[in-house]
Amino acid sequence: MAVNLRIPGPTACPEDVLLAGAKPMVNHRGPEFRELITRVNQRLKTIFQTKNDVVMLTTSGTGGLEAAIVNTLSPSDKLLAVSVGAFGDRFASIGEAYGARVIKQNYAWGEAADPDAIRKALRDDPEIKAVAITHNETSTGVTNDLQAIARVVREHDRLLLVDAVSSLSCIPLPVDGWDCDVVVTGSQKGFMIPPGLAFVSVGPRAWDASKKAKMPRFYFDFERHRRSFEAGETPWTPAVSLFFSLDLALDKMLAEGMENVYERHARLGALTRREAKSLGFKLVCKDERFASNTVTAMYVPEGVQDRALRTMLRTDENVVVAGGQGQLTGKIIRIGHMGYVSEDDILDATRALRRTLEKLAATTAQTPH
Amino acid sequence: MAVNLRIPGPTACPEDVLLAGAKPMVNHRGPEFRELITRVNQRLKTIFQTKNDVVMLTTSGTGGLEAAIVNTLSPSDKLLAVSVGAFGDRFASIGEAYGARVIKQNYAWGEAADPDAIRKALRDDPEIKAVAITHNETSTGVTNDLQAIARVVREHDRLLLVDAVSSLSCIPLPVDGWDCDVVVTGSQKGFMIPPGLAFVSVGPRAWDASKKAKMPRFYFDFERHRRSFEAGETPWTPAVSLFFSLDLALDKMLAEGMENVYERHARLGALTRREAKSLGFKLVCKDERFASNTVTAMYVPEGVQDRALRTMLRTDENVVVAGGQGQLTGKIIRIGHMGYVSEDDILDATRALRRTLEKLAATTAQTPH
Repeated sequence: MAVNLRIPGPTACPEDVLLAGAKPMVNHRGPEFRELITRVNQRLKTIFQTKNDVVMLTTSGTGGLEAAIVNTLSPSDKLLAVSVGAFGDRFASIGEAYGARVIKQNYAWGEAADPDAIRKALRDDPEIKAVAITHNETSTGVTNDLQAIARVVREHDRLLLVDAVSSLSCIPLPVDGWDCDVVVTGSQKGFMIPPGLAFVSVGPRAWDASKKAKMPRFYFDFERHRRSFEAGETPWTPAVSLFFSLDLALDKMLAEGMENVYERHARLGALTRREAKSLGFKLVCKDERFASNTVTAMYVPEGVQDRALRTMLRTDENVVVAGGQGQLTGKIIRIGHMGYVSEDDILDATRALRRTLEKLAATTAQTPH
Repeated sequence: MAVNLRIPGPTACPEDVLLAGAKPMVNHRGPEFRELITRVNQRLKTIFQTKNDVVMLTTSGTGGLEAAIVNTLSPSDKLLAVSVGAFGDRFASIGEAYGARVIKQNYAWGEAADPDAIRKALRDDPEIKAVAITHNETSTGVTNDLQAIARVVREHDRLLLVDAVSSLSCIPLPVDGWDCDVVVTGSQKGFMIPPGLAFVSVGPRAWDASKKAKMPRFYFDFERHRRSFEAGETPWTPAVSLFFSLDLALDKMLAEGMENVYERHARLGALTRREAKSLGFKLVCKDERFASNTVTAMYVPEGVQDRALRTMLRTDENVVVAGGQGQLTGKIIRIGHMGYVSEDDILDATRALRRTLEKLAATTAQTPH
């Protein structure tokens, strides 16, 4: 029985996409790979809905976030880091690690960021050079209103750095339409390939900023990547097998049509939430308008141990869900519904969840007092 | 006809190792992956011949070099960067990018580093905190006498940072025996798996240094990796599919036996050099004692264009060799003989080289003046 991998990344990948990654190695500085990365890059731009450069890095998404910061800022630059959960906190921590003066705007986990509060912060402090924001917060299942936030950032002419690791390619994010300066995503979510690549769009204002940005960088330096890409290469040896998989996965995504991909994610997000509520779960996301269509986080019912629930789901039902992170550790489970996922996958998981909750309830009822 | 990929990385991989990488994704924070990385890490230590921690990073080798620097040094620390080619230069550039005071000790390309010159540099300048050295220089096919250099660095009690990307797992490098502080290698060479992982051994002096090292770091921070690994995890989502491949590749390496792996590389290195010389090539490596057993760099004969030679090899013979880098661009070809490679692979390549040279000579002879 196949495992139903319902975590918010790495996500399940189509079998032929995985097999494409098993093709023999090629010269990463030869014509075959040059054609491959050129072809891949053009289609990434389609999915980013951008004319900006899209830098392709061999790294996890976190490395992509680091790249966004170190290429645009200098130590002691002020960065407004808007955080609605663990990944917003991480973005802020990267800024701090590199010496930015980070101003945190924290929200209770489960809430979405408030564009008006961001406007106020920018108005009150003209020294803020950039805003770091998570589009979709994987730790809470909350999608921020990036369009409204981007508008606010543009009004005040600051740089907008977006963590779109668990959003872009699953839910709409028109990079040029919303005029986002740097947008980071990862390979292991909507792109339906294994982890190890990050894709980062870099707009004209970000390129200008990079010329003055004094944070040290080498491996993640955008300019080195841009120059190499002009020659059809990457500056460092890339994760070749992941590019093979990506090539086929992009075919599939564009064959389905991105509007259909977005519609499918919206439908499966709604289905997951409906099923979760019907099982008596309370969602972490406090306002349905901001509920994520890629991951649903839900509080484990009173009297149920999250670890026992997840272990039983895995061992008895072959359904793998994620636990909580940071302050929600032990309190929630999270179900991923992004990338290569269908209605059947969701219903299989929620049926398994129902059976497991019933078994756990029976066990608890039998426990002698 | 299968391609004979004779570049110095990414190297050819066994088919079953590639297919292992096509297994379905798993939860990178679940028990299955925990067991996998624990098992992999133990065997990496065997191959590193070390009791030190071995940090596993999702990155190219260059990211591993960056990690070696930023985890052990502070800006304005003095770093002696010993360079015998393009990768030695790169190691130095990373130090410079992060604000180290880099003292370059450059050798003519084709030469090996002189332990006595390093001793003199360390004796003359007690401020030098660390020495960065390339064990095997992929751009020239030169293997430095790391054992002697390590002894010098220990005599003077400095840190030794080793780029072993194209050496470790192919030629002997007993990390504890030679007492090397930080040793970096990559997945796409002797480990017979695709690029995307770097492995870095970190010894006690390097851990001490990391506590005081002020260079900024986040994604590559050793301490974050160490803490996560204690919980059987990686701090950021790792390149899961490459770990699947690595698991099987390590089985194969240890089944062959590392002494046999080293002996095979020594034999194939000697064979490649003998064949190259019999074809009239002059080796870039000036002294046979330092000739690399993982890559051979050779000057293209007078009147032959390196690009024409490589293109004809690829299109007519299905043999892919590498060109030169930096100051040797256009002047040399390089044949890789590391990882999954046999005598037949080498003889197939050198026979193809002979035919191609003959064809090119005939073409040149026919060209009217």
